[in-house]
Amino acid sequence: MQILLYDTTLRDGTQREGLSLSVEDKLKIARELDLLGVHYIEGGWPGSNPKDAEFFQRIRRADLRHARVAAFGSTRRADATCDTDANIQALVAAETPVVTLVGKSSTLHVEQVLETTRQENLAMIAESVAYFKERGKEVVYDAEHFFDGYKLDAAYALATLTAAAHAGADCLVLCDTNGGSLPHEVTEIVQAVQRRLANEGFSNGAAGRGPTLGIHTHNDGALAVANALAAVRAGCVHVQGTINGYGERCGNMDLIPLIANLQLKLGYRCITPEQLRRLTEVSHYVAAVANLNPDTHAPFVGHSAFAHKGGIHVAAVAKVPDSYQHIDPELVGNRMRVVVSELSGRGNVRMRAQELGLDLNGNERVVLQRIKELENRGFQFEAAEGSFEMLVRRAAPDYEPPFELLDFTVVVSKHGAGDIISQAMVKLKVGNEVMHTAAEGDGPVNALDKAIRKALLPHYPELADVQLVDYKVRIVDEHLGTAARPRVLIESARGEERWSTVGCSENIIEASFMALWDSLELPLARRRASCNAHRS
Amino acid sequence: MQILLYDTTLRDGTQREGLSLSVEDKLKIARELDLLGVHYIEGGWPGSNPKDAEFFQRIRRADLRHARVAAFGSTRRADATCDTDANIQALVAAETPVVTLVGKSSTLHVEQVLETTRQENLAMIAESVAYFKERGKEVVYDAEHFFDGYKLDAAYALATLTAAAHAGADCLVLCDTNGGSLPHEVTEIVQAVQRRLANEGFSNGAAGRGPTLGIHTHNDGALAVANALAAVRAGCVHVQGTINGYGERCGNMDLIPLIANLQLKLGYRCITPEQLRRLTEVSHYVAAVANLNPDTHAPFVGHSAFAHKGGIHVAAVAKVPDSYQHIDPELVGNRMRVVVSELSGRGNVRMRAQELGLDLNGNERVVLQRIKELENRGFQFEAAEGSFEMLVRRAAPDYEPPFELLDFTVVVSKHGAGDIISQAMVKLKVGNEVMHTAAEGDGPVNALDKAIRKALLPHYPELADVQLVDYKVRIVDEHLGTAARPRVLIESARGEERWSTVGCSENIIEASFMALWDSLELPLARRRASCNAHRS
Repeated sequence: MQILLYDTTLRDGTQREGLSLSVEDKLKIARELDLLGVHYIEGGWPGSNPKDAEFFQRIRRADLRHARVAAFGSTRRADATCDTDANIQALVAAETPVVTLVGKSSTLHVEQVLETTRQENLAMIAESVAYFKERGKEVVYDAEHFFDGYKLDAAYALATLTAAAHAGADCLVLCDTNGGSLPHEVTEIVQAVQRRLANEGFSNGAAGRGPTLGIHTHNDGALAVANALAAVRAGCVHVQGTINGYGERCGNMDLIPLIANLQLKLGYRCITPEQLRRLTEVSHYVAAVANLNPDTHAPFVGHSAFAHKGGIHVAAVAKVPDSYQHIDPELVGNRMRVVVSELSGRGNVRMRAQELGLDLNGNERVVLQRIKELENRGFQFEAAEGSFEMLVRRAAPDYEPPFELLDFTVVVSKHGAGDIISQAMVKLKVGNEVMHTAAEGDGPVNALDKAIRKALLPHYPELADVQLVDYKVRIVDEHLGTAARPRVLIESARGEERWSTVGCSENIIEASFMALWDSLELPLARRRASCNAHRS
Repeated sequence: MQILLYDTTLRDGTQREGLSLSVEDKLKIARELDLLGVHYIEGGWPGSNPKDAEFFQRIRRADLRHARVAAFGSTRRADATCDTDANIQALVAAETPVVTLVGKSSTLHVEQVLETTRQENLAMIAESVAYFKERGKEVVYDAEHFFDGYKLDAAYALATLTAAAHAGADCLVLCDTNGGSLPHEVTEIVQAVQRRLANEGFSNGAAGRGPTLGIHTHNDGALAVANALAAVRAGCVHVQGTINGYGERCGNMDLIPLIANLQLKLGYRCITPEQLRRLTEVSHYVAAVANLNPDTHAPFVGHSAFAHKGGIHVAAVAKVPDSYQHIDPELVGNRMRVVVSELSGRGNVRMRAQELGLDLNGNERVVLQRIKELENRGFQFEAAEGSFEMLVRRAAPDYEPPFELLDFTVVVSKHGAGDIISQAMVKLKVGNEVMHTAAEGDGPVNALDKAIRKALLPHYPELADVQLVDYKVRIVDEHLGTAARPRVLIESARGEERWSTVGCSENIIEASFMALWDSLELPLARRRASCNAHRS
């Protein structure tokens, strides 16, 4: 049976404390979701902020292959009309094929939060749904607090659903907004909803007349995935969630394990097997765009999800791979790790070099050896393609570095009650000339960046357009206490071109320096390579 | 109905990649688990490493109020006797009231991993259980891979259980070792086990003859808590898990949401309501001892678990607190946060000062104001009682600092291909004397520490005994990119006395300096205070 996946990472996911996405970030994630085979992408709440309105304008030109884009908003305000309701009109302006309307199911919310009447709330739902059906939209109706509302007043909660159904909603989504429901309650309530809809003459799904049923859960009881599975088993065919379970409080339902469980354990169809193999990559990609550390212990896709530490487990896995793993990790694009330092093989290196248009000239082994060495020291190349590229370029026997570092000195000082002052001195060799420069910055790394640029600019004026656009520090092996190593990631840009570089050392200044060096050498090396190609 | 909680943080929890606990850490956690009201504490596998053997020796003198300590090991080896089996004898030597024996349930494991016969495996189970029953132990039998084994060969899996039951096991624990089972499967299989045990004349639980049933789940499908709840609803009365779900691969079942769900949602008795209110504290404490960042989005106990970010949610919560939360957070010792910067009240400050034996002299407001300021800048005092103490001491009008910082300079330099060199200079005023010192170190912070000590030692020779025992860096607000601030935590010790201090700044050198300063001023301030008390 086919299950429809509805992703709300870009809307409900951004309610997570500490998560914020630019329009550019949202477009990147939308493209990735489309490739994964998600059926619906909820892009935002156009009535709530201008950033979302811009997203909807730009996504129209993004040429998604597969996913339908949805705009989210609430039913019209009490005692207003759809034509004059700003939120409803913002949904119209978003020009999406799908409109998702959220309405109240719980008498507590109708009476005490909205402060309106039960009757008016039903009218708000029916009129808002009908408004968009008349305009040819696919309408998804999110029944907010449905489970809590049902427990409080089942008849009223059901009446809100039938109001939406009679108005023509294509899908009725039962929301466990506060995330406190238990799987057996979800099963019982979904079954009750189905009985009621059948009594009204509706059948669930495309086969007959009437809306399909959907489920939207949150993880406040650590049960979001279990609740969604229970709902699907009870008959829901549309499932809402976010990548990595990002969302307010304890998060939304995590689509990653949901998809894997439905498809690999329960035999439902969600996406193709090829798309399923992208699951690990998508999870990590979305984390990187959101600038969050991926959860290394995440089910199915975590770096540790198929890692064996215990001695007997490792011995058993060597004999019988399935003895300590519940699925073949390759089905979701992950892999088993028996030894902690075991790393990517030569095939991966070749593939990545090809993707970057680089020729390895038989240097796979050297490059792989170097990557292993550096990853053991805490480097990570997944999010630092620029440093990977430099590693490959430097392995070429005829590579000529555009500059050489001779010395650097960073000085951080504070005198009396004054501000802290950060300065750097560098000595570089460019061609036959030795450049000795100094600069002051906001912190030691900024000072170092400025001093290096001062030394390089006279020879490479094109670096004036290169900008350091992001600087991130993470602590590797934070459990090691004193030996914890800062890992520095730098993102640089020149116009539309972007590259990320990495450095890692127990000394944060050195780690930053390594990432800076790669970030400035890369545009020079690329340019030189393209000139040489022209010449030959 | 009473549910018995069996914690295996100290054994299975330490299988988590990146988690390692010293014997001291394990004793600290055991005391905390005892206060929480956990019924069993599995301390380790004495046959597998000497650290665990030492733990069992020391825990005997720990005077736990409530919890029973269990030692874990496997059934005897094939074709051996219990008397000569090293693992069995290590369990005897552990001298715990409870012995937990793990045995094979799955024919795949019996035949392909152990490489023995089905019959011999049954004998291994029966003899090992009987061996410890004869020695007066409470025996918990862990049926490894029970659910997978049942799906492969139900009759054999059930036979392993009845072998343990007939040998006198007090509890049969059904283990989903690979973590891939689904809740509805768990329900069905637990019911089948109960039918089989009843057929053998056993009744489940203390009321009649025969063993109780237990459940042990893992989170590989994101369903560990749901699976444990399903098992309890189907009749299991003993539940195994770890604090914060620490464990191999994707982790063990997390006892924190399990306890809260069982007690607050399903009406089972696990611990007292007073103990339940310690849930948040226990979760954070165990994370701190393990040196892991607490999961800010963890159900029930996460810092964000009851935080409201969305505008409409905040407005609704202000009107009706229950409108967007599934339980009253105070029941689990957590709290609702509507505003991001909302912080602890004056009452907290007073309580913590009292705990430290400090007199606030009506300075609550000043201290609280300062804490709010610093927490907004990324400081965190939860794990830094030393810095909190210095804040309180410095707020006293008659406080005289034992030294004053005039200047400091840190120099990090690299010349040619040589090593990176880190040096520091400091200028301090001690009494009327100005001390100007310099030192070299492994990295800039170590150099700074050495230089400050050089300046202070001539006046305060007692600092020679003060050691910096741990230095941790974490990045605060890592999503902020360039504005990410390192937060430095330093732990210092003098003999048995220990204190932690904190510093936070965009400049990691400054952050480290702040934490160092507090760590060295604190022992001097304490000594001066105790001398003044003597004098007056």
